[in-house]
Amino acid sequence: MAALPVAVDAMGGDQAPDAIVAGARQVAEQTDIKVTLVGVPGAMGDTGDLPLIPASEVIGMEDDPAQGVRRKKDSSLVRAAEAVRDGKAMAMVSAGNTGATMASALLRMGRLPNVVRPAIATPIPNLERGWPTVLLDSGANAECTAAMLVQFAQMGAAFVRKRYGVDRPRVALLSIGEEKSKGTPLEKEAHALLADMADMADSADMADMADMADDEKGDNKSTGASVPVGGEGFDFVGNVEGRDFFGDGADVIVTDGFTGNVALKTMEGTLRFLVGALTEIFARPDVADAATVIYPYLLPLAAEFEPDNTGGAMLLGVDGVCVISHGSSSSVAMVNAITVAHDLAVAGLVDAVAASVTVAAWTAA
Amino acid sequence: MAALPVAVDAMGGDQAPDAIVAGARQVAEQTDIKVTLVGVPGAMGDTGDLPLIPASEVIGMEDDPAQGVRRKKDSSLVRAAEAVRDGKAMAMVSAGNTGATMASALLRMGRLPNVVRPAIATPIPNLERGWPTVLLDSGANAECTAAMLVQFAQMGAAFVRKRYGVDRPRVALLSIGEEKSKGTPLEKEAHALLADMADMADSADMADMADMADDEKGDNKSTGASVPVGGEGFDFVGNVEGRDFFGDGADVIVTDGFTGNVALKTMEGTLRFLVGALTEIFARPDVADAATVIYPYLLPLAAEFEPDNTGGAMLLGVDGVCVISHGSSSSVAMVNAITVAHDLAVAGLVDAVAASVTVAAWTAA
Repeated sequence: MAALPVAVDAMGGDQAPDAIVAGARQVAEQTDIKVTLVGVPGAMGDTGDLPLIPASEVIGMEDDPAQGVRRKKDSSLVRAAEAVRDGKAMAMVSAGNTGATMASALLRMGRLPNVVRPAIATPIPNLERGWPTVLLDSGANAECTAAMLVQFAQMGAAFVRKRYGVDRPRVALLSIGEEKSKGTPLEKEAHALLADMADMADSADMADMADMADDEKGDNKSTGASVPVGGEGFDFVGNVEGRDFFGDGADVIVTDGFTGNVALKTMEGTLRFLVGALTEIFARPDVADAATVIYPYLLPLAAEFEPDNTGGAMLLGVDGVCVISHGSSSSVAMVNAITVAHDLAVAGLVDAVAASVTVAAWTAA
Repeated sequence: MAALPVAVDAMGGDQAPDAIVAGARQVAEQTDIKVTLVGVPGAMGDTGDLPLIPASEVIGMEDDPAQGVRRKKDSSLVRAAEAVRDGKAMAMVSAGNTGATMASALLRMGRLPNVVRPAIATPIPNLERGWPTVLLDSGANAECTAAMLVQFAQMGAAFVRKRYGVDRPRVALLSIGEEKSKGTPLEKEAHALLADMADMADSADMADMADMADDEKGDNKSTGASVPVGGEGFDFVGNVEGRDFFGDGADVIVTDGFTGNVALKTMEGTLRFLVGALTEIFARPDVADAATVIYPYLLPLAAEFEPDNTGGAMLLGVDGVCVISHGSSSSVAMVNAITVAHDLAVAGLVDAVAASVTVAAWTAA
């Protein structure tokens, strides 16, 4: 069977369609990944040999997401999501209206079984190790229940395993102190549920080890991969605080979409502020020579935090791979986003996320 | 009448008692501000000529705040708060257990009339102008109602007016988008209440202007100081996002104590992370000469973000001035915190905060 293409929304993003089309063409021309552009024919510039899925409408950055999807049924975003739903694309990528991207994916692809709400997972660069810390929900759901946070933990762990190869992700809960008594009732309840699951996992480990003792193969050691429920294991490492995003204490940090969005934008704002202050200093004529010496060491640091390089955020919990690239995406950002979307589709992300999410008594409500 | 002293908890903070006592002595010896140390006699080192209020107990950093205050009635923190309550001190300062400092102030000084809950106001340095942006609540109340957020706006505006001389503070609500429809029900309700108050203020302005038109003094122009309720005016500038903390869009940013604490610690963590990365680069032998050229320009930036220089956070809404200095406070931090506490007590902060807080239908619940 021929591989499916990645459907790329050519109309979404501040630099659309030029940067989007350029990135899509680069991937198609330089790799084995197939790409289909979704957009308004004649309004996408030079699309080269890329196959097209036509759309007659565009959901703009200022459009209301839900209304946009409902009213603009022939928009590039909706058509991209339908391409995944209909088995014509393996994944979708958009740098357009984030809310409308979520709504298109949710309404056209649908939720995975048992998922209460999809969540946005955003990678936060980490210099101490080879992979980022993933924050979710970073903005899809302003209001959350504890059951949703537990599912975010499960989906985030599945994502980190597929995306970064972390065998047994460490999941933390964002709160305002390390003690389980800290936070609002939401954090306290989520902490209790996640700790209970960890206890169950420990019990399962014990059972496994008992089985293994009975087993004749003494070399078949447990690697801690035994899992309480759902087929994907992770360790719950308790609460972390806002100051812990850049440390090595967790691979996944879960929180509600309001707090996650505030935290993420606070990081962005703080970084932008400091980089701006440094840029002003380095632009002084009297430090020009010194700046030349230091720049080579600053560039890798800057590259680490360049959003173009992260591959974008993921919408987890829908029945398809959906990469949300930032609004100012360049062609480089598109190359990375399309590559990540392809790799995760091939790696079976959606099945892994589906298998990770469990229904328990607390999700029935 | 002789001026009252500032009561300083000599036992609180990572560097207590030495740094605390050193800072207190420096203020007493070099300024007209009077200082009283509160602590365990014999355990404070060389206290010089400073008057003492004896205590036999210390509430540690790890003690539960409420239990600590209840059980350690003869602790330095409780005695410091009692000194303010009993008219023996004009203000209190502590670098100790933040929760216990709040609890001591709340339980001993009491709330101001009509205040639903006191809040912690924390200054965030701003390089674009001469004064910080004040964030509240930065951690006193994990759960808040919209009525509480409105009072935080009122108290924060009163604080910024007294502390930084901003005549008509611009108050913003922290949310996840500029539109009033963004956020959780808490932000939506708070937005509506604050916008209603602004409308009332506008109406009052119109009434004032009508009065003025009738007035013979044509030069008595309205400066926008007319106020809907409570005696202190401010402008509600709508929602801001996490990326706006270092901009010049607002003088006061209000949010619940959970989100405020996460945002503040996220800023701290991001700054510490970047400063650490830069420090590593600048420590390289091959950039030593260049670093020497650039350092003089970095120092003022670093000084701006040195917590020792901000004067600490304020507990607003209690019947007394209470400055909460950070746990690692040096003697310099103490000098600043004591000076700020003195200045705000002299300036009548508590009366201003009391006058700013209103009771409306929504606070009766």
